[in-house]
Amino acid sequence: MSKEYVLGLAKEAKAASRILSRAPTNGKNKAISVMAQKLEENKNEIREANQQDGHLAKAGGLEQSLVDRLKFGEAKIASRIKALREIILLTDPIGAPDSVIKRPNGLEVKRVRVPIGVIGMIYESRPHVTINAGALCLKSGNAVLLRGGSETINTNIFLGRLWQEALKEAGLPKASIQVVETTDHEDVWRMLELDEYIDLVIPRGGKRLIKAVRETSRIPVIKHYEGICHIFVDSSANLDMAIKISLDSKILMPEVCNAMETLLVDEQIAGDLLPSLGKEMKAAGVTLRGCKAAREIIPWAEEATGQDWVTEYLDMILSVRVVSGIGEAIEHIDSYGSHHTDAIVSENFTNIRKFETGVDSAVVLVNASTMFCDGGELGMGAEIGISTDKIHARGPVGLRDLTSYKYVVTGTGHVVEEV
Amino acid sequence: MSKEYVLGLAKEAKAASRILSRAPTNGKNKAISVMAQKLEENKNEIREANQQDGHLAKAGGLEQSLVDRLKFGEAKIASRIKALREIILLTDPIGAPDSVIKRPNGLEVKRVRVPIGVIGMIYESRPHVTINAGALCLKSGNAVLLRGGSETINTNIFLGRLWQEALKEAGLPKASIQVVETTDHEDVWRMLELDEYIDLVIPRGGKRLIKAVRETSRIPVIKHYEGICHIFVDSSANLDMAIKISLDSKILMPEVCNAMETLLVDEQIAGDLLPSLGKEMKAAGVTLRGCKAAREIIPWAEEATGQDWVTEYLDMILSVRVVSGIGEAIEHIDSYGSHHTDAIVSENFTNIRKFETGVDSAVVLVNASTMFCDGGELGMGAEIGISTDKIHARGPVGLRDLTSYKYVVTGTGHVVEEV
Repeated sequence: MSKEYVLGLAKEAKAASRILSRAPTNGKNKAISVMAQKLEENKNEIREANQQDGHLAKAGGLEQSLVDRLKFGEAKIASRIKALREIILLTDPIGAPDSVIKRPNGLEVKRVRVPIGVIGMIYESRPHVTINAGALCLKSGNAVLLRGGSETINTNIFLGRLWQEALKEAGLPKASIQVVETTDHEDVWRMLELDEYIDLVIPRGGKRLIKAVRETSRIPVIKHYEGICHIFVDSSANLDMAIKISLDSKILMPEVCNAMETLLVDEQIAGDLLPSLGKEMKAAGVTLRGCKAAREIIPWAEEATGQDWVTEYLDMILSVRVVSGIGEAIEHIDSYGSHHTDAIVSENFTNIRKFETGVDSAVVLVNASTMFCDGGELGMGAEIGISTDKIHARGPVGLRDLTSYKYVVTGTGHVVEEV
Repeated sequence: MSKEYVLGLAKEAKAASRILSRAPTNGKNKAISVMAQKLEENKNEIREANQQDGHLAKAGGLEQSLVDRLKFGEAKIASRIKALREIILLTDPIGAPDSVIKRPNGLEVKRVRVPIGVIGMIYESRPHVTINAGALCLKSGNAVLLRGGSETINTNIFLGRLWQEALKEAGLPKASIQVVETTDHEDVWRMLELDEYIDLVIPRGGKRLIKAVRETSRIPVIKHYEGICHIFVDSSANLDMAIKISLDSKILMPEVCNAMETLLVDEQIAGDLLPSLGKEMKAAGVTLRGCKAAREIIPWAEEATGQDWVTEYLDMILSVRVVSGIGEAIEHIDSYGSHHTDAIVSENFTNIRKFETGVDSAVVLVNASTMFCDGGELGMGAEIGISTDKIHARGPVGLRDLTSYKYVVTGTGHVVEEV
């Protein structure tokens, strides 16, 4: 029964994707605009559905921090409405040629962006994905199956119905955006077998979920693994700048994947930097865990163990290690990091170049906060996630990354071998 | 034992890939150039190794056509030397920024091409892949594990050793290009589990091999499935052009994936086109298999069954179907084709646009032969294969498609939230 349900959704999505791939930008924007309006009009109903989820989660014994996470109240709804309006303003990537060349024989070769087809989103708790991913997939001409966490099923079902109404009003196939309305875990694995209908899977959530999806899926997956992000403060660094960037990277949003988890400090300036940096971090409520050399300078820091270098805290904790220089810093990042987002604070040109080329991360920052690892900040608009993969998309995944391309080759009777 | 062997190769490849990612273009070109020279100098030894493979294959009862396929003689060696010299001339994609923007806050955001890491090639019979894929992966800064078919193991091992010498002379890690020297089939499946060390798998060969790799692999795969390629001759077509393009697309290289397999003809011109086109095809040795309407015009054609529309002949056979117009042609291609390479011959602008946007194939041609679906012909240089995937790379896969990217973000002390 449930197997057929998921298969049915996927088949409908495939059929819708064919129509969507040719849908004009205006139509897609209209659906997103109507959705924004419907979120506004249905604020109370959304909150009610979400409160129902909250009660069920509490009754089911979910931890309070997780119950908080699935809350979708007035402020979050307003922020989604704003996000939808921003997505409307983004350039539609579909149909735009991103290169045109003329070959010596006169053939014109155009590379044109086309949608991927059907995208399967598999995510935990936060219902904002139901709105965001729906809009980004639609704008890029893809149909999407949204499979959110069971803890927010009522919120997601309600949002899915709003999408249905918005699509209908815009004259687009209702199967363009579909919420999987079951909570059976087996349905996730069923989705991952449907490589005939689903072209790409994007899992969002804990490492365990993503790993399981990766290992099970027959469909290509864009992974969003953890961010064990570093800042290396070089001996030439401006110390005030180093403190300012470190604080922004650690305390602005400690719960996000691009927050700094480990600070690496050149031994030559550790004595100058760590006392004041440590003081500021402490004042902000950050717990420090230092290596031996770091604790000689700031003895109040806790002792870091090997486990600390490979831990994504997502919390007000920072590990600190004193290194012998740029070489050891790069080595540390390569060995313990997750190739996500890493920054250097330095005034030394050669060391900056070494860091840029030597650190193999999706986003490498020079004298800037790791908080800038964000689709909007990098100029691509809203993002559907941050890829830790190197295949297809890396770093923030924006509209263009949700597309593929085709070559359109135009001749005037061209053949390879003239007879 | 063998499990450790493959794991060992993969680990060495990963270590080599780190060095290779920073190797200067000159060094990579030097290795390719030395390889070209070694192919020249070792022609006889290569032929001997290849003859040994031939004897074993024959003794093992392999069909003569397959024995012929694995032959790697003087002409093929010469053509590989030429291909290597062409790869040397291609622009190194690594390190080149493909976009640079300045954000309103003054941040500079560069997107820089980087290698993918370690590529696993899994292929059947033809030893030219050992040379081609080795050179393309090297030039794009990737280490590669080459797992060729057991029928050409002696040739491949010998070519692998030449690569080792060439890499050594160029001062590059020997593990940059490694031939898997065992013939145990299990080793293929072992490779596909090593997602910690291998970043991308490219299978080349029959549909069965590719499907098995796809379903087993934990590593992202770029598939090279079959090409069921069509030419649609519109009612407005120039008939001479239609015949010329059809002949080129069918008979120049019937054995390649982008050869035409099905000809679709608008019913309005079927009576004018098919008699002369049929005559020319027949004269060239092509067997025709027609639908009912086609056989009313060329009664000597065999009867096409439903199976014909979904068959990649790779042979001097052509299926012919008369359709009611552009709509039915696009529908046929969508239902029976493989989204590989499809062409229209037409003078009608609206129909051409309909075909360009309505046919969802990697390469769509207008008034040009399907033989132009080729990396060289499309201006990207040598190709490692033709992808039927939409993720990462589609159509001919060239040097640039063997890369990923990173964002390099440069500020002057930028933080998201000024305190």
